[in-house]
Amino acid sequence: MNNEFILPVQVFIEDTDMSGAVYHANYLNYMERGRTAWCNALGIRLEQWAYQGIHFVVRQAKVDYLVPAYWNDRLEVVSRIANRSYTYLEYQQQIRQQETKQRIFCEALIKVVCVNQQQKPRRIPAELAEGILSDN
Amino acid sequence: MNNEFILPVQVFIEDTDMSGAVYHANYLNYMERGRTAWCNALGIRLEQWAYQGIHFVVRQAKVDYLVPAYWNDRLEVVSRIANRSYTYLEYQQQIRQQETKQRIFCEALIKVVCVNQQQKPRRIPAELAEGILSDN
Amino acid sequence: MNNEFILPVQVFIEDTDMSGAVYHANYLNYMERGRTAWCNALGIRLEQWAYQGIHFVVRQAKVDYLVPAYWNDRLEVVSRIANRSYTYLEYQQQIRQQETKQRIFCEALIKVVCVNQQQKPRRIPAELAEGILSDN
Amino acid sequence: MNNEFILPVQVFIEDTDMSGAVYHANYLNYMERGRTAWCNALGIRLEQWAYQGIHFVVRQAKVDYLVPAYWNDRLEVVSRIANRSYTYLEYQQQIRQQETKQRIFCEALIKVVCVNQQQKPRRIPAELAEGILSDN
Repeated sequence: MNNEFILPVQVFIEDTDMSGAVYHANYLNYMERGRTAWCNALGIRLEQWAYQGIHFVVRQAKVDYLVPAYWNDRLEVVSRIANRSYTYLEYQQQIRQQETKQRIFCEALIKVVCVNQQQKPRRIPAELAEGILSDN
Repeated sequence: MNNEFILPVQVFIEDTDMSGAVYHANYLNYMERGRTAWCNALGIRLEQWAYQGIHFVVRQAKVDYLVPAYWNDRLEVVSRIANRSYTYLEYQQQIRQQETKQRIFCEALIKVVCVNQQQKPRRIPAELAEGILSDN
Repeated sequence: MNNEFILPVQVFIEDTDMSGAVYHANYLNYMERGRTAWCNALGIRLEQWAYQGIHFVVRQAKVDYLVPAYWNDRLEVVSRIANRSYTYLEYQQQIRQQETKQRIFCEALIKVVCVNQQQKPRRIPAELAEGILSDN
Repeated sequence: MNNEFILPVQVFIEDTDMSGAVYHANYLNYMERGRTAWCNALGIRLEQWAYQGIHFVVRQAKVDYLVPAYWNDRLEVVSRIANRSYTYLEYQQQIRQQETKQRIFCEALIKVVCVNQQQKPRRIPAELAEGILSDN
């Protein structure tokens, strides 16, 4: 049903900026880790797909930054599928405090398109499309 | 009128990922450079404002990734103000090919809020609000 | 005796560059994560020390890059103390394959100095100096 | 004679960390930009060489961090050749204040090896070896 994947992430110094908080672009890194780790958990080796000419590219990102996260904060990336077609997956992702799960730092919709070597959209392999929707 | 600020940017290896193209989160870095350089061009020293407790935080980013940019590509970041209030500026930003100005790699709306030391929204200093709108 | 701390690290796309391998500067990030995680494991909250004006800055890094690591490789950062004084710690750090522990990607000596708010060297707090040497 | 190449670089927020200063690993990015820009200035298109299987990998880096650089600081990367063989170039690189040229933030020796598609050392193309030594 409410399929989701949760990846724990720790904020390291490299992620912060002079404001003391995580630099805004770096939350997108955390979200990418969440999507890749979900594939890994399904037994999918994206790096091998890449060798076979099956790539995933981010086409759109809508990110809301709610409260800042700081060095050594323990976060988790929660990933779900919000929309999909034969060629794309739109992830709804949230970065929240690991301990309380209440404090939401950042929310995003990330649209990822499956493309071939020529950057043309292609059908998402069933292993991923099915795995990610029936994961439980 | 159509106030805008253009910052040239070169793609370096650090910006790319294993796909060969610029990693999607790094376009947000280019856009941040464009916004900061605009302030610099207006004579505003944001780093001094920061010492005085005047900060700018990204609250929302909507990014469309159109075509990939590659190592050593020469880009430019075009920044305009799309919307504003007393406390926020919404930038409409575009990353395009420097030479042709035709090829658009990435477009975004970035909402930046002016906050005080306690992260509460505060009035944008007139020097910036006026400078950025009457710049020509 | 042979005090060491081992932190598992996974290579994500953000860490790679257009060569396909991890971008050379990013191994330094992994090493910093290893040093911070060691402190965390000792119950030291570096972020609280920072508020009290106790900082650690990298003064020197000597890095040998042996073989490239790739996307989704599972690594581990092995950290030991090679040298120390009252004010600095020199870490000997290695990044190796998690599974075999045989394949060494990168080795480094990283000298970290404890400084006060004015960036002057100061005595390393006993909690860290002792913890890191007697950890077992 | 004393061939060198100078690249101006500005510190942006993305380069800083919660200490307020540039994150130590990011100085390596600036140095890489200096090396690539030098090749560009010689008319060498490294990205085309990469397609032909001629790559350059960092094998060793020795970095001394002298004083911290901060947001919006205007720096320059000074690059020289310290040592060379048929297959490698060792760069001596310095990051200093653009205005005064007196304040040195960071110094490094960076050994870069020319490798083929199989990561085996190969002869550096004459265009680069000669250009970089006779540049004036």
